[in-house]
Amino acid sequence: MQMQVAVLGASGYAGGELIRLLDAHPGFEPVFLGAHSQAGKSLDSVHPHLAGGDRRLDPNDPELLPDETDLVFLALPHGASADLGLELAAAGLMVVDLGSDFRLDTPERYHAAYGAPHPHPEHLADWAYGLPELFDVTGSTTVASPGCYPTAAIVGLAPILAAHLADPTRVTVSAVSGASGAGRKLAEAFLFGSVADGVVAYGVGNHRHRPEMEMALERAAGLARVKVTFTPHLVPMQRGIVATSTMPVGRSVERSELLDTLRDAYVGRPFVQVVDVPPQSRWAVGSNNVLVTAYPDPHADSVVVIAALATLVPARQAARTRVRESLAYG
Amino acid sequence: MQMQVAVLGASGYAGGELIRLLDAHPGFEPVFLGAHSQAGKSLDSVHPHLAGGDRRLDPNDPELLPDETDLVFLALPHGASADLGLELAAAGLMVVDLGSDFRLDTPERYHAAYGAPHPHPEHLADWAYGLPELFDVTGSTTVASPGCYPTAAIVGLAPILAAHLADPTRVTVSAVSGASGAGRKLAEAFLFGSVADGVVAYGVGNHRHRPEMEMALERAAGLARVKVTFTPHLVPMQRGIVATSTMPVGRSVERSELLDTLRDAYVGRPFVQVVDVPPQSRWAVGSNNVLVTAYPDPHADSVVVIAALATLVPARQAARTRVRESLAYG
Amino acid sequence: MQMQVAVLGASGYAGGELIRLLDAHPGFEPVFLGAHSQAGKSLDSVHPHLAGGDRRLDPNDPELLPDETDLVFLALPHGASADLGLELAAAGLMVVDLGSDFRLDTPERYHAAYGAPHPHPEHLADWAYGLPELFDVTGSTTVASPGCYPTAAIVGLAPILAAHLADPTRVTVSAVSGASGAGRKLAEAFLFGSVADGVVAYGVGNHRHRPEMEMALERAAGLARVKVTFTPHLVPMQRGIVATSTMPVGRSVERSELLDTLRDAYVGRPFVQVVDVPPQSRWAVGSNNVLVTAYPDPHADSVVVIAALATLVPARQAARTRVRESLAYG
Amino acid sequence: MQMQVAVLGASGYAGGELIRLLDAHPGFEPVFLGAHSQAGKSLDSVHPHLAGGDRRLDPNDPELLPDETDLVFLALPHGASADLGLELAAAGLMVVDLGSDFRLDTPERYHAAYGAPHPHPEHLADWAYGLPELFDVTGSTTVASPGCYPTAAIVGLAPILAAHLADPTRVTVSAVSGASGAGRKLAEAFLFGSVADGVVAYGVGNHRHRPEMEMALERAAGLARVKVTFTPHLVPMQRGIVATSTMPVGRSVERSELLDTLRDAYVGRPFVQVVDVPPQSRWAVGSNNVLVTAYPDPHADSVVVIAALATLVPARQAARTRVRESLAYG
Repeated sequence: MQMQVAVLGASGYAGGELIRLLDAHPGFEPVFLGAHSQAGKSLDSVHPHLAGGDRRLDPNDPELLPDETDLVFLALPHGASADLGLELAAAGLMVVDLGSDFRLDTPERYHAAYGAPHPHPEHLADWAYGLPELFDVTGSTTVASPGCYPTAAIVGLAPILAAHLADPTRVTVSAVSGASGAGRKLAEAFLFGSVADGVVAYGVGNHRHRPEMEMALERAAGLARVKVTFTPHLVPMQRGIVATSTMPVGRSVERSELLDTLRDAYVGRPFVQVVDVPPQSRWAVGSNNVLVTAYPDPHADSVVVIAALATLVPARQAARTRVRESLAYG
Repeated sequence: MQMQVAVLGASGYAGGELIRLLDAHPGFEPVFLGAHSQAGKSLDSVHPHLAGGDRRLDPNDPELLPDETDLVFLALPHGASADLGLELAAAGLMVVDLGSDFRLDTPERYHAAYGAPHPHPEHLADWAYGLPELFDVTGSTTVASPGCYPTAAIVGLAPILAAHLADPTRVTVSAVSGASGAGRKLAEAFLFGSVADGVVAYGVGNHRHRPEMEMALERAAGLARVKVTFTPHLVPMQRGIVATSTMPVGRSVERSELLDTLRDAYVGRPFVQVVDVPPQSRWAVGSNNVLVTAYPDPHADSVVVIAALATLVPARQAARTRVRESLAYG
Repeated sequence: MQMQVAVLGASGYAGGELIRLLDAHPGFEPVFLGAHSQAGKSLDSVHPHLAGGDRRLDPNDPELLPDETDLVFLALPHGASADLGLELAAAGLMVVDLGSDFRLDTPERYHAAYGAPHPHPEHLADWAYGLPELFDVTGSTTVASPGCYPTAAIVGLAPILAAHLADPTRVTVSAVSGASGAGRKLAEAFLFGSVADGVVAYGVGNHRHRPEMEMALERAAGLARVKVTFTPHLVPMQRGIVATSTMPVGRSVERSELLDTLRDAYVGRPFVQVVDVPPQSRWAVGSNNVLVTAYPDPHADSVVVIAALATLVPARQAARTRVRESLAYG
Repeated sequence: MQMQVAVLGASGYAGGELIRLLDAHPGFEPVFLGAHSQAGKSLDSVHPHLAGGDRRLDPNDPELLPDETDLVFLALPHGASADLGLELAAAGLMVVDLGSDFRLDTPERYHAAYGAPHPHPEHLADWAYGLPELFDVTGSTTVASPGCYPTAAIVGLAPILAAHLADPTRVTVSAVSGASGAGRKLAEAFLFGSVADGVVAYGVGNHRHRPEMEMALERAAGLARVKVTFTPHLVPMQRGIVATSTMPVGRSVERSELLDTLRDAYVGRPFVQVVDVPPQSRWAVGSNNVLVTAYPDPHADSVVVIAALATLVPARQAARTRVRESLAYG
């Protein structure tokens, strides 16, 4: 039996990728697609790669959801899910938020990450962290989907830290991401001429994904305190993340022990692939997979964990509709 | 002795590249840098690669030009030079317009290219077309700099057509350009995610550079009528153009005759290099050079002319100033 | 009922992409995978993205084919299919050749394209040209798969020429291709440092795909003589082709007539999509589709036809196995 | 007065870039250009961007050096300088080795880095480490040029470690490099199709640049023991390195203290630019500059140091000569 699902925020990169996955999945039937400024347009005028030319974008209004709706996905900008997610949950709907409003479990973490208090701090603890390989989401009716960088870091690090193979207070995560992480945001920093053929770090020392990594690692590994230094970089590729994490180890550790620890943690988890070479980010493109490996560095008493995944947006998607007007430059 | 020059529109890609060239040239001294919305800022906050941290952008106001100014460069959006260029010329200044307001020599051509009448049609014939390898600009005090695609097409085609080696009414120009042609324009079509790893044609059948090509070829080759079909494409590179032009020939022609025709036309012209292999656009990057070659295609009774040049903007330039705010995406 | 298929040349880009398609198709079951120098290796050591870790590459030896084999795909270098394809056909097997040995239908065309006589000229006429949207392959037991550039050119041009809308002896095809067309060939011209951020033409006036285009257009459009000038370019993308074809027209033609001509030709042909904007090559990636459009250019008495398709090799495939040794450069 | 210089290994990327710099420098006159397999060719057939069409590549034979030669640059593969460098030095010539044979100062370090003993271990201590911003090379007649990754890491880290602002035994260096680091090496891992649109780590835990970083940091910062964990990554750009280094700090440190420490260390050193934003690798392209910055991360009791530089090879250089044969792929 199929779940009847609604997508609010269907016009963005994340919403479009979600619809692509839902269309291909036998367990879901999208029955409502909501948008903000694009409401009223046809789906394929916004996402030309999505079949079904007669599908239309309605306003992002919960009043308009069909009665048979079981589950609502929110793919909205930061801040826009806080009220709406709770309203939908209160109405008895299951809610999955792809955004960042409910990822952190305490008011303190939220404030640290976003520099402002959460509007409904008393509800943060109610939302499950939607990384089912590490967190039990069974029975949860409100689920917050993890961030892209945290997913890459956590999947590799959690089993290593849970096995007490490394110092959890000295985790260094250096990661690279393709440009799709920024979605369709129009800013000079994301023009082709700004991104191509160069690399730049950003958010040094204060990226909002750091508190999310620490929270998830503490909970998944059962540790009182995890401390992460996180430096993300923008690289000239369309999508994909590689996260390289380095930690001190207290004792000598073999590579086989590291790989076995990862393999044991993900038995029966098809979306995590433990590999024995550094994973190329491209190997994950088009899939849900996280590819992960680990190496000891006995010379420096350290362990290095490397994970790769694809960020959203398939190659075919971008920029079809607006090509005509924009390219009139000459 | 140095010419004292002003640059109006100094904050764009073209203006910045021009200042870089002027700074390196012993014959020019930039004494005034004008801008529109960026007026008041320091030059290096807008173009970080340009030395001289104490240079400031003044408003684009001709009243502010120093008395010693000899020459004004205009690097303004289309339409903005029409009044200003004439006003400066009337005041006795030499003017070089990098824009497109004075490239076409008749009101009819201008109207055909831009879909509207020129505001000062009686002055169009006064401006020299600034391709000195083919047009005499000696003594001209008002010069219009050619467009990027036309330059690539004209340099290769003019000598071949002037020698009556091909049919001037059946010229097919197919060209590719990197993204820098669009400058710093913020549009979804120019995001990294829109340009990378794909190719798309645009402006098919009606690009405004077609009338410019026809005008220049008619005048340079001394022909009554040239007809061009022009199809430009956006390709994932930062800068550079390759123009591939194909024409019917009336008789058999050897490759050596084609190459000799090109070489003879550009003796003593250091910025045109006649090469004997298809020119890679990268070979021109960082220089003023146009690289050009030609091939006979006897099977199809045709000749193929290929030219490459660099469009503006050096690799170091883009997007420094706004990285901090824009990259806060996560 | 599934066809039992063998793939000879399973280790190359084309072979790997073919296996990916066969694995996903309900009508085919790959029962034999042959290779040359990689014989003996496991499939996933050569194509890490292909599931089924216990599949092995056998030698490219027809003696080893299982008795139940119905159909053999040949994905071999040029020249390697000529003997083998006929031998397999003589043994009663259906054969599809992805290579270029049997694409041309006469000894003369073959000699013109490849500069040498075909070893078995008397058999050339027996092979069907495997573009079923334009050629009837029903009942054929030996099929030659078309080349990449010809497919892009032919799909757009054939209906226009068949409708006598343009001069078939003055066809100019200018095309761009990503680097995957060269497969895994090791040459300096295909290094990242040679391809990135530049464009270069090649094979000017003598590319072997020109005779194939002319043959297919003559046969598909029912014309005595088609003449094509063809200039391919290498652009910095991984896969994809855009072919822009220009032809003189004898009379005025509307855009709607061009689009209707294309649409009528491909009714019920799901792999050809007639679009009304210039097709971006990326829109075809991951699919079998050819996207095609056409524009009149009344100013130059011409018509422009633009087609885009994906060339082979998915992003995930490349270069996994040899990363370890090769990257030891420092 | 100009030094008369010879370049052995003039045909590679490093040799070509060196000649470009020497040609532009008033203090040097290249009088001899040696090559191995390319000996006998003209310089511009190998490096088309280098002017002087009548310059020829001679064999890499020290017997052939002109008597007036003052200084020899060696741009040879690893291992090829060990004998030759000493022979030239013994003959009274000044020698600068761009390779890796004389970078490490003790037999132990050399063995650890390269897995084999040095053929002339007693001479290692005689060679100066050619990073003059940190090491005194005055009066040295044998100089080893530093590696690319070490330069990026050392310039940023040495002043911070010398000021005892961070723990030198817990240095994590995560770096990205463009493809030019691999020179013209033909390997599948460096094809466009392997590098484009993806990122991959390599040499994890055992890259030969780690011992070089540790040596240089110990000596430059006056420390008994530095321990580095180093993970390099290949990213899809032509040239450039960004090195992001993270270290624990023992006490609270302000950003201004970090920046002042860097600025004080490089007063009067024009090739090191201390910047206050994360440096984009492109800002260094075409220059000798290293751009460096640092940030405190008080949350994790760490400091992050980021440096960017350009690796060799200008965009125009690559792959001109061999385009003709290699592109005949179809």
